Amino acid sequence: MARDFAHEGSVGIVTPQRLRVPGEFGLQCGESLDGFELVFETYGQLNAARSNAVLVCHALSGSHHAAGYHAEADAKPGWWDACIGPGKALDTDRLFVVSPNNLGGCHGSTGPATVDPATGEAFGPAFPAVTVKDWVRSQALLADHLGIERFAAVVGGSLGGMQALQWAIDEPARVGAAVLIASAAKLSAQNIAFNEIARQAITSDPNYLAGRFRSADANPEQGLGLARMIGHVTYLSDSGMGQKFGRELKSGNLSTARGVEFQVESYLRHQGRSFARRFDANTYLLMTRALDLFDPAGECGGDLVAALRRAQSDFLVLSFSTDWRFSAARSKEIVDALIAAGKNVVSAVIDSAHGHDSFLLPLPRYVGVLKAYMDRLAAAAEAGSADAS
Amino acid sequence: MARDFAHEGSVGIVTPQRLRVPGEFGLQCGESLDGFELVFETYGQLNAARSNAVLVCHALSGSHHAAGYHAEADAKPGWWDACIGPGKALDTDRLFVVSPNNLGGCHGSTGPATVDPATGEAFGPAFPAVTVKDWVRSQALLADHLGIERFAAVVGGSLGGMQALQWAIDEPARVGAAVLIASAAKLSAQNIAFNEIARQAITSDPNYLAGRFRSADANPEQGLGLARMIGHVTYLSDSGMGQKFGRELKSGNLSTARGVEFQVESYLRHQGRSFARRFDANTYLLMTRALDLFDPAGECGGDLVAALRRAQSDFLVLSFSTDWRFSAARSKEIVDALIAAGKNVVSAVIDSAHGHDSFLLPLPRYVGVLKAYMDRLAAAAEAGSADAS
Repeated sequence: MARDFAHEGSVGIVTPQRLRVPGEFGLQCGESLDGFELVFETYGQLNAARSNAVLVCHALSGSHHAAGYHAEADAKPGWWDACIGPGKALDTDRLFVVSPNNLGGCHGSTGPATVDPATGEAFGPAFPAVTVKDWVRSQALLADHLGIERFAAVVGGSLGGMQALQWAIDEPARVGAAVLIASAAKLSAQNIAFNEIARQAITSDPNYLAGRFRSADANPEQGLGLARMIGHVTYLSDSGMGQKFGRELKSGNLSTARGVEFQVESYLRHQGRSFARRFDANTYLLMTRALDLFDPAGECGGDLVAALRRAQSDFLVLSFSTDWRFSAARSKEIVDALIAAGKNVVSAVIDSAHGHDSFLLPLPRYVGVLKAYMDRLAAAAEAGSADAS
Repeated sequence: MARDFAHEGSVGIVTPQRLRVPGEFGLQCGESLDGFELVFETYGQLNAARSNAVLVCHALSGSHHAAGYHAEADAKPGWWDACIGPGKALDTDRLFVVSPNNLGGCHGSTGPATVDPATGEAFGPAFPAVTVKDWVRSQALLADHLGIERFAAVVGGSLGGMQALQWAIDEPARVGAAVLIASAAKLSAQNIAFNEIARQAITSDPNYLAGRFRSADANPEQGLGLARMIGHVTYLSDSGMGQKFGRELKSGNLSTARGVEFQVESYLRHQGRSFARRFDANTYLLMTRALDLFDPAGECGGDLVAALRRAQSDFLVLSFSTDWRFSAARSKEIVDALIAAGKNVVSAVIDSAHGHDSFLLPLPRYVGVLKAYMDRLAAAAEAGSADAS
């Protein structure tokens, strides 16, 4: 018997689509790609006025698979299934959600793991540096392809929120609202430090082979696993980890100090190992570098208010009380700058024990605020559509 | 011309001493050592009543060299020179300060880098697990050797503070006051997670060679350097790193995303490299495990108040506002338990931008509070000494 996806509030089975963009695509770093492909998914239906499209941008380790399932047997849905589906915060009965894999990613879009036709081998470390601005430009080409002149909203958490912010600045006429969740206007020295440690872990793994590991049929699993473990700790809160693991033992005896393994150690190692088997090490380097380099205020001499004046969209800025990767204070910096730039901004700090990862979780107040905001956009899109028809 | 150390407020040139403890020394893990050596330094003079001795316990990467210089040409003094010396918080004109290198360390005390007479090779990974309780017992033997029946104070920061706490519980008659700085009664899941990531970095380095790197004349420099980088970030505060490094570049160009190296990356890599050349990887594993296992309440079924009832000493508990490795809240747990256990406890949270590392720095309020407390102990020791003479 087929699964009743609608009953689960799921978009059901989804099939990734693919866009090939031919021709030279110049990047911020000065290099260029001889064409590229983006893999993406869509959920819901684009209305006649093409006014109900929402772009979802993924974070460091995300992909285009944001909602639904690829097969009936899949145990897990896409990464933001908590918020995308019929009746959910991004209501696919009303909105047309577009979710691409980023350029430079490793889930199907052109990236370091892609075979370079010029050499017959994976690009690997030769793949050029990609920035958030490059992602916005590539996603704009996807919007062109889909016939979307203007997104009702561009939405993302963490690095995804940075893309939404850059969209609002670089493509002001094409964004109705930018939704920035658990994000920041630029990385702090501590953020960069953790990224650099992760990169060192990867590049010092002897199986990294100066980035040419695919050609040697190798994988820097230890280094990439370590990088993920470091990242993972920064996604969780101290209190959340305490609630989930405390000092519980997986094995051994504390009083004799013998054979002790804490649950949290076993959990982290498992997370590291499973991530390292499914993610490309060069993409991890590329994504963390894009995070480090992100700094929209930099184009205006460090003046974020000046940078944000270019935006024409409304803004929703959400953060979480125990997030210490991109804390609520970082969102407040954005909110203050938006207010100073004269923008319409709605913001909330959501109480949550779950740190940065909160943006992926079905927390009632979070999902409620997001849904209320998105429903208002959906209603406006429907009104616009009715006007147009 | 000789340096005027007294003018610098320094104890001057110091010479490490060495104690050989013969015979079997049983450890908490059930294994035992066939004798061991402790290297230590002392500063100041033990008074006639032997009442003015202070034991200083070091943290993860510390050593017996807490104050003064080993040679006139030394650029840097011992690790706690800010607080130990004539007229300083631990006033060596009045107090006799004893500072050992921990058993299992790599600065001269018996540890994994020591040659095992039975094999003619370094103990390496065969060196048994050592706990904070073991350190207290080994330090008590050093006190016996020095003719110190009772310390006026046992003092330490971080892991050193844990030793001071364990001293107060395990040797109640031998501790006048326990001084716990930037410490915690046990590690949180997040603390353990960072330690485990550091251990993974070390043991996955191909030069670790299952711990037998010394026999192969190798050193897991990459892994140990990574471990240090991870530790170092947890010793600093986000705001402190922001003030020190911000997003300053060492090289490259942010607008073209080319050749970018941030100052904080270069700094961390340098810290990692220089640490990896002077520290033993097996000692790092041993020390982090001792941290993980520390849990004095565990002996009383998790009841810290019950564990602390055994203590007879007074307590000074200091913490720092931006310390997130062992936050002020962790010190507050200890203070609350001490009050519930009916102990004399003085405590302060010191405002500092410098995170966990604050305990090593000459911050005026910190040093002032510590000096006032230690001066009172010195006066009491002098009064006791006058009574005894």
